Amino acid sequence: MDRRSFLRRSALGGSAAAATALAAPAYAQGKRTLTLVTTWGRGLAGVHDAAQYCADQITAVTDGQLTVDLKAAGELVGAFEVFDAVTSGQADMYHGVDYYFVGQHPGYQFFASLPFGMTAQELHNWYYHSGGHELHNELGQIFGLKSFLAGNTGPQSGGWFRREIKSPEDFKGLKFRMPGQGGEILGKLGASVQNLPGSEVYQALSSGAIDGTEWIGPWADEKAGFQEITKIYYTAGFHEPGPGLSLAMNLEVFESLTPSQQAAVQQVTASANQWALSLFMKNNASALRRLQAGGVQVREFSDDVWDAFGAAAQEVFAQYMGDELYKKIYDSYVASMRDSAAWIEISEGVFTRQRNRVLG
Amino acid sequence: MDRRSFLRRSALGGSAAAATALAAPAYAQGKRTLTLVTTWGRGLAGVHDAAQYCADQITAVTDGQLTVDLKAAGELVGAFEVFDAVTSGQADMYHGVDYYFVGQHPGYQFFASLPFGMTAQELHNWYYHSGGHELHNELGQIFGLKSFLAGNTGPQSGGWFRREIKSPEDFKGLKFRMPGQGGEILGKLGASVQNLPGSEVYQALSSGAIDGTEWIGPWADEKAGFQEITKIYYTAGFHEPGPGLSLAMNLEVFESLTPSQQAAVQQVTASANQWALSLFMKNNASALRRLQAGGVQVREFSDDVWDAFGAAAQEVFAQYMGDELYKKIYDSYVASMRDSAAWIEISEGVFTRQRNRVLG
Repeated sequence: MDRRSFLRRSALGGSAAAATALAAPAYAQGKRTLTLVTTWGRGLAGVHDAAQYCADQITAVTDGQLTVDLKAAGELVGAFEVFDAVTSGQADMYHGVDYYFVGQHPGYQFFASLPFGMTAQELHNWYYHSGGHELHNELGQIFGLKSFLAGNTGPQSGGWFRREIKSPEDFKGLKFRMPGQGGEILGKLGASVQNLPGSEVYQALSSGAIDGTEWIGPWADEKAGFQEITKIYYTAGFHEPGPGLSLAMNLEVFESLTPSQQAAVQQVTASANQWALSLFMKNNASALRRLQAGGVQVREFSDDVWDAFGAAAQEVFAQYMGDELYKKIYDSYVASMRDSAAWIEISEGVFTRQRNRVLG
Repeated sequence: MDRRSFLRRSALGGSAAAATALAAPAYAQGKRTLTLVTTWGRGLAGVHDAAQYCADQITAVTDGQLTVDLKAAGELVGAFEVFDAVTSGQADMYHGVDYYFVGQHPGYQFFASLPFGMTAQELHNWYYHSGGHELHNELGQIFGLKSFLAGNTGPQSGGWFRREIKSPEDFKGLKFRMPGQGGEILGKLGASVQNLPGSEVYQALSSGAIDGTEWIGPWADEKAGFQEITKIYYTAGFHEPGPGLSLAMNLEVFESLTPSQQAAVQQVTASANQWALSLFMKNNASALRRLQAGGVQVREFSDDVWDAFGAAAQEVFAQYMGDELYKKIYDSYVASMRDSAAWIEISEGVFTRQRNRVLG
């Protein structure tokens, strides 16, 4: 099935199923239980926490008028089935990362993280004040969804390598685990890209089935134990500079909420955004200190490696530009990113470098 | 009157007055109107907007059970009187920037911005996950306040100068407008520091009564019109790297709210924090582009000027270390900042520099 026919089917199916859901008995009693399905295993650090935070806080702020029942990945539907579960009305909302849904529409990439794209702060500047949220909703209209950013992991690490990367040529034939567009980009450099689920990565790296892997950042990476296998850690990566997490609600369910309940969802997701980002930042900072104390060596890719990443990224983006809505979002995103980046560089960027230098 | 006797008097006065307020008729009817006083003139870009956002969203999320009546500076009490108005129960809460209240306790500086201190993101890391909010409340206990970060302006600019600053000696005798601890630091470099209210700054700079001024950032500075007087603009400053705004509620009023109303206040303020920061970032970015198109030259202070700022800052901080609670907050703040800064530098810092270089 091609994507466009899937889009039409999904949008129609979503409306019909949601209308059925609206007739369910819970709706008549003042108090409603809403089902939140997630792309996260229960207990997955940071990301499951962000989903649970949304569930708990929506329940708290509405005094239980909306009681959110969180179903982690696999409890009601599988991780990658949450999108269809919500568009079809099987669940009321999902919490996840929207690049899982680039098969539904490639434009969803922008609301998670674009290689060489926005940091978390730049994403928020665009999303809340330069049309990003409106474009997220324009995508959502196709599928019958109302979407909100609802968390952020902060910058993801370049990854763990068994030997140092000295030039772009070192990626030729390298067996490396990286999903999504980042993986496509490494593929253009000649890497043999693997997309292993998290549970298999440690064993694959340990056995030599892969030569290296990216995962999330120091907090999650330390828990996964990669420092037991290799000490070479590239902290800065090109592939996910600040992935936003999303909460998307079935549009008809959202429109059936009272204005104050809608405001509660909007406020809680915005708050979750910052809460999760600072949680990752804090825990990554502490974990990095421990990793370095345990002998992990932090490395940076050289300029020519970054140049090669950049050239390959442009090739990958070009593949999607034929889609009108993708191009519309890309243009809005890049214009906002350039504005934000220029200001941040000469204000916070200069300050931070000078402060870190002066304070040592 | 010394500070400590003021503290005792203020705390006692606050409790008694708040108890009276609790008996007011509005409290018995389910719906309550809460008065929010602010340190901002009505319409002051970004900061008044953040206060209005809090007022509107608390009202919206609680469906008017809490209806917030915003009184801008001068409408009920003056800008610098809001703290006492809330501790005494004359108003229910204030929105402002807590370094206005270093006279009440010098520890309030940390919940706004410390020279050479945290960026907005670092502040959030500390506040939400490393004990910052708890310390804010420990300060608040002294005065009968419950405080929340509720906005951020992002990094403030170094300021406008009639002639270039080439060495620390150029500050000797320079008549410069900078309030607070930043001004104290410039004073140690020999500047003649002025603390003019915003409404008088343009005229003072224009007439030569002052040689330079900092204000906020490109958005607000452009509105003030300083680019009509001089084109020399230092965008990065040492003095306010990411000022948090605060909403503080009379503690007895807060404790009289229902749990869901308390959750609403907590969620809305956290959301306002990010909403305002991204609003400033977006508008600063656009304004900077316009300013540069109009001939404004962006400059950076040299390393030896930053070194001089840094040495003077340490002298200023040392003056407050005799206060036990100040030192406790300082130690917590600096430990968190060092952790955060180390991680951000080698992840987002490296990424951003490489991305900006590669994309041009």
